[in-house]
Amino acid sequence: MTMDFASTPIWAVLAGLVGLAFAFYFASSVLKESPGNARMQEISLAIQEGAMAFLNRQYKTLIPFVIIIFLILTFLKGWQTAVSFLVGALLSAVAGYVGMGITTRANARTTEAARTSLNKALGVSFRAGAVMGLSVNGLGLIGVAALFLWFQDAETINSFAFGASAIALFARVGGGIYTKAADVGADLVGKVEAGIPEDDPRNPAVIADNVGDNVGDTAGMGADLFESYAATTIAAMLIGAVAFKSLGGGVSGLMLPLMIGIAGILSSIIASFFVRTGENANPQTALNKGLWGTNLLTAIASYAIVQLMITEPVHVSESLTLTANNIFIAIVCGLVVNILIGLLTEYYTSNQKAPAQAIAKASETGAATNIIQGLATGMKSTALPVVVICVATYVSFAAAGIFGIAMAAMAMLSTAGMVVAIDSFGPVADNAGGIAEMADLDPSVRKTTDKLDSVGNTTAAVAKGFAIGSAALTALALFNAYSELAHLDRIDILVPTTIIGLFIGAALPFLFSAFAMEAVGKAAFEMIGEVRRQFREIPGLMEGKAKPDYRACVDISTKAAIRQMIVPGLLAIGSPILVGFLLGKDALGGMLAGGTVSGLLMAIFMANAGGAWDNAKKYVEAGNLGGKGTPTHAAAVIGDTVGDPFKDTAGPSLNALIKVMGTISLIIAPLLI
Amino acid sequence: MTMDFASTPIWAVLAGLVGLAFAFYFASSVLKESPGNARMQEISLAIQEGAMAFLNRQYKTLIPFVIIIFLILTFLKGWQTAVSFLVGALLSAVAGYVGMGITTRANARTTEAARTSLNKALGVSFRAGAVMGLSVNGLGLIGVAALFLWFQDAETINSFAFGASAIALFARVGGGIYTKAADVGADLVGKVEAGIPEDDPRNPAVIADNVGDNVGDTAGMGADLFESYAATTIAAMLIGAVAFKSLGGGVSGLMLPLMIGIAGILSSIIASFFVRTGENANPQTALNKGLWGTNLLTAIASYAIVQLMITEPVHVSESLTLTANNIFIAIVCGLVVNILIGLLTEYYTSNQKAPAQAIAKASETGAATNIIQGLATGMKSTALPVVVICVATYVSFAAAGIFGIAMAAMAMLSTAGMVVAIDSFGPVADNAGGIAEMADLDPSVRKTTDKLDSVGNTTAAVAKGFAIGSAALTALALFNAYSELAHLDRIDILVPTTIIGLFIGAALPFLFSAFAMEAVGKAAFEMIGEVRRQFREIPGLMEGKAKPDYRACVDISTKAAIRQMIVPGLLAIGSPILVGFLLGKDALGGMLAGGTVSGLLMAIFMANAGGAWDNAKKYVEAGNLGGKGTPTHAAAVIGDTVGDPFKDTAGPSLNALIKVMGTISLIIAPLLI
Repeated sequence: MTMDFASTPIWAVLAGLVGLAFAFYFASSVLKESPGNARMQEISLAIQEGAMAFLNRQYKTLIPFVIIIFLILTFLKGWQTAVSFLVGALLSAVAGYVGMGITTRANARTTEAARTSLNKALGVSFRAGAVMGLSVNGLGLIGVAALFLWFQDAETINSFAFGASAIALFARVGGGIYTKAADVGADLVGKVEAGIPEDDPRNPAVIADNVGDNVGDTAGMGADLFESYAATTIAAMLIGAVAFKSLGGGVSGLMLPLMIGIAGILSSIIASFFVRTGENANPQTALNKGLWGTNLLTAIASYAIVQLMITEPVHVSESLTLTANNIFIAIVCGLVVNILIGLLTEYYTSNQKAPAQAIAKASETGAATNIIQGLATGMKSTALPVVVICVATYVSFAAAGIFGIAMAAMAMLSTAGMVVAIDSFGPVADNAGGIAEMADLDPSVRKTTDKLDSVGNTTAAVAKGFAIGSAALTALALFNAYSELAHLDRIDILVPTTIIGLFIGAALPFLFSAFAMEAVGKAAFEMIGEVRRQFREIPGLMEGKAKPDYRACVDISTKAAIRQMIVPGLLAIGSPILVGFLLGKDALGGMLAGGTVSGLLMAIFMANAGGAWDNAKKYVEAGNLGGKGTPTHAAAVIGDTVGDPFKDTAGPSLNALIKVMGTISLIIAPLLI
Repeated sequence: MTMDFASTPIWAVLAGLVGLAFAFYFASSVLKESPGNARMQEISLAIQEGAMAFLNRQYKTLIPFVIIIFLILTFLKGWQTAVSFLVGALLSAVAGYVGMGITTRANARTTEAARTSLNKALGVSFRAGAVMGLSVNGLGLIGVAALFLWFQDAETINSFAFGASAIALFARVGGGIYTKAADVGADLVGKVEAGIPEDDPRNPAVIADNVGDNVGDTAGMGADLFESYAATTIAAMLIGAVAFKSLGGGVSGLMLPLMIGIAGILSSIIASFFVRTGENANPQTALNKGLWGTNLLTAIASYAIVQLMITEPVHVSESLTLTANNIFIAIVCGLVVNILIGLLTEYYTSNQKAPAQAIAKASETGAATNIIQGLATGMKSTALPVVVICVATYVSFAAAGIFGIAMAAMAMLSTAGMVVAIDSFGPVADNAGGIAEMADLDPSVRKTTDKLDSVGNTTAAVAKGFAIGSAALTALALFNAYSELAHLDRIDILVPTTIIGLFIGAALPFLFSAFAMEAVGKAAFEMIGEVRRQFREIPGLMEGKAKPDYRACVDISTKAAIRQMIVPGLLAIGSPILVGFLLGKDALGGMLAGGTVSGLLMAIFMANAGGAWDNAKKYVEAGNLGGKGTPTHAAAVIGDTVGDPFKDTAGPSLNALIKVMGTISLIIAPLLI
């Protein structure tokens, strides 16, 4: 028999509130720091305003869309489903506002802290990231648990995940387009044509570029992992309920994912206090302590939880017995994937390692060989992560069946608070460096922020790997939950409609990536025109006597991103509905599998190729192979520019794509029976 | 009841012999033409020798591998299976030798003919291509039919297809590496560094480059379609036998694919006489007449065949009745795919159309935007071909069940004779232009051959589309045949091992493409070193007083191609065996589906991106957007260079990859039960 943990959702809400309380504590400790001199405050304010303007515009654009879906859901599935959807969309937006509100205020404060101490600067920027991390994690846990307390049904609340994923989709696509349009525009005209350094205040696109770091990496990643967290928790609850239901119980299966969620958020909070560094130490070590600490604490807590909740073996079927130890094995699988994917991502993208250096080397024979080598590296880098995910799937299934796969995903996602924290820290450090530059501070400040920024690049790569790997596991959990809700006891790819679904699902990531990349191209084109216009028409700009019109550039990025996110967004949401109703539930099952597989591969390919190109360029800029100003460097810059929309727009958008396909399929599944 | 066409294999052998007779007739008519002056003969001889040296070396390298598999098959599955394998490998090699023997002899003869008449030059080059086409088609049909007559069992002879696919795999990979290493080497050092024109006899890599056109496009494509032809025919026979077996008959189902094969080869022969052009007309029209004529004649003949063979409706199951008209619908689906994929490929790659022109336009802002636009175009171009294949699959299945899908594939492949002919015509025309240049003939000759060459680029794109589309349909047919032989009545992707297979299968094309692209990089690197060495060390070379050492460059391409083809080849053949025996037959089924889906998408992506980059460059070179010598042109050249290994090495190799995965799975299927 299993113990009955019926009050778990209440504890989960409480744990979520504890998370939010710490987010509040970190936020106020950040805001207490000095925001620096007037110039620094002015720049920081411009970034804040730009970021908020984008968020406002983005969410405003989505309001009619959210209302329409709300009405459709009310009509088709009842008000409970519609309310869950609305809450998911709202909480995702709230997490975005709260997190961005702090990270964009922390940038100048980090710069100011960097004037005195590396550890202090790390503290400010990491705590700002932790606000985002704990908001995402806390609101996710509270949302799922509170809705479950209210409606007492995991199937009803899965539209919470759909709400979160709809927002995430647009946040990823829109944020991705924004950040790269601004980045490419600022670099191509400012650095290349006008020959002024990065983050130079004379560059009209410099504020837009700094805003882009926030809306792309912070808000986009936050919404992405908020969605993964919500979707995985609910899918694991659904699968758990079914796995244990044959025994008349089902409560342990429902509650176990929430308990792991509680373990994860508390572990993240505790481990966030491990993050501190010496003045001459590498801040990477400090962040590693936070990340590894979270995983270790979660593992220990999970062991206690499964022992407590599953006191006797549960015989699910003839071949499968769930024991505490078996479920713990599945949980460990998720945590191991967490760490291995991070290490693999770092290997393929770090400028200390062979792959990026080979790309740098290939730049010696020109841009073409640089591109070929980068594409080959990205493609090659898909193999090992896929093997890791396959082994984890195999082992967790062997240990605890489909529920094991869901628990592996849940364990991985339970650490999301810390992952978002170390990811959001990156843009803060990046912005801090920009502000040091723009405010003309002593070069030693920039040196300190650069240390943090370079660590931020690694943590961004690790978080990207986490986002992709967890998206794949989430999608697998959604896929299995879909089969339950659609009453499919098999999804047979010998049935032609299933294989047609597989083909269409696999083609979507290609089409979606194409749209995203073209959108960046178009938006960057507008940006380039505007920056050139300002250099040409504003007298005294280059001499530093006149100020550029930052707001015009911010506006262009914002408008272009909002406009260009619509078509891919509708494509992602419309396709599963079309396939489901036209070709049936088998075809939709095939589509989910095809989309997950091809989306995972394309996402890894693009993220790692982009990261490797970026670091190959940095490797050359560090003085290798001739260093800056050589043809080798010029070739490496071309690779880096190609990699930008790869790694920051198209790649991350695919995570959102495969998950939104899954969550929308869960919603329509009962209608297809 | 259905009529009994038990003697069909004899007719098929006869039809194949008729094909070979016409190949012989075309060959002697080509050889009767004047080979031109001494200089032209000398160059042509060098190309012949280079091509033959590569084929000899390649096949010699494969001998131990063929012997080992022969012994394993004898031991595991009996001598009949082993002999079928051997015959498949041998006939593929024979088709390669015969076809290449003629195309490399036809080049100088085409140049000579171009001195007097466009129509005559078209005649010589097209008839040379037709020798290759009819050899591939005739030997394929004879091989299948004769082995069936001997062993009377479709399952035994499927190792004929495996033999063909093993050779095709190495031919595609090796040929692809050869041609691009030579091309990149010749271009980078000759055109860019030394500033001499393309096909200049002072370039040491010029002969290797011309040899490459033959071994890549002619031998590679020939082996590829020989394999598709064999695999599809046998898979259709297997599926047909099962579909009709429930009625105690099965002969119609077995024989119908062979009858369509007979219709196809005879149609190709007849339509080859439609290929003639006026002096001022576009030779494209002449080749279109050949291609469309073949499709039309095949359709008409197929209609007669199904009416003759299926005189009464055959009730296969409650929901499926096979009638003559239903099967004819499936056949038409295959022929329509044929034409639509060709048109789509042309749309996405032609320099007359928007996609390639948008890439050219993007080159104005540099290489990075050119690359981004090209990648986006390639990704986007996957959608419509996938829709075409899905619709064809859906309609042919709705009309005639799984057998309908197999017959659609068979109908498409039945036109392979003509497709290979118009494809192989391209390298002949290309070589003819090179010879005109190297032999210093009047520019008017080059103008005539250029007309043919530009048509050759289009027909190459069409053939590439055909090769990819038919590979996908072949893979689907193999996949269904596999499920029959492995006694799988379902392949359920809710089973975790199946989805693991799906993941691994989908990852293979990424890994395989990475290997192929890196191999080109390494081989090109050696080639660049050698060409630079010769320019440096051979006195009087640049002044035209001394001759370069062509043979050294030919040797480098040959050795590098042979060496680099081994690892990807073993990966392709080893993976299905490993997955099948370690994870079981469901996982192998998932792997085939994953490999087919992802391989198709990657193949279309890479082929079309490469084609579009190539033509974007040609668009600029035609004088648009500033024309040659501008930064725009330089950017377009970089895109073209990136596209080379995409479209001519990695992309085409994926066709071979997905088919060899299928044929090897058929072999091991009975061992997995």
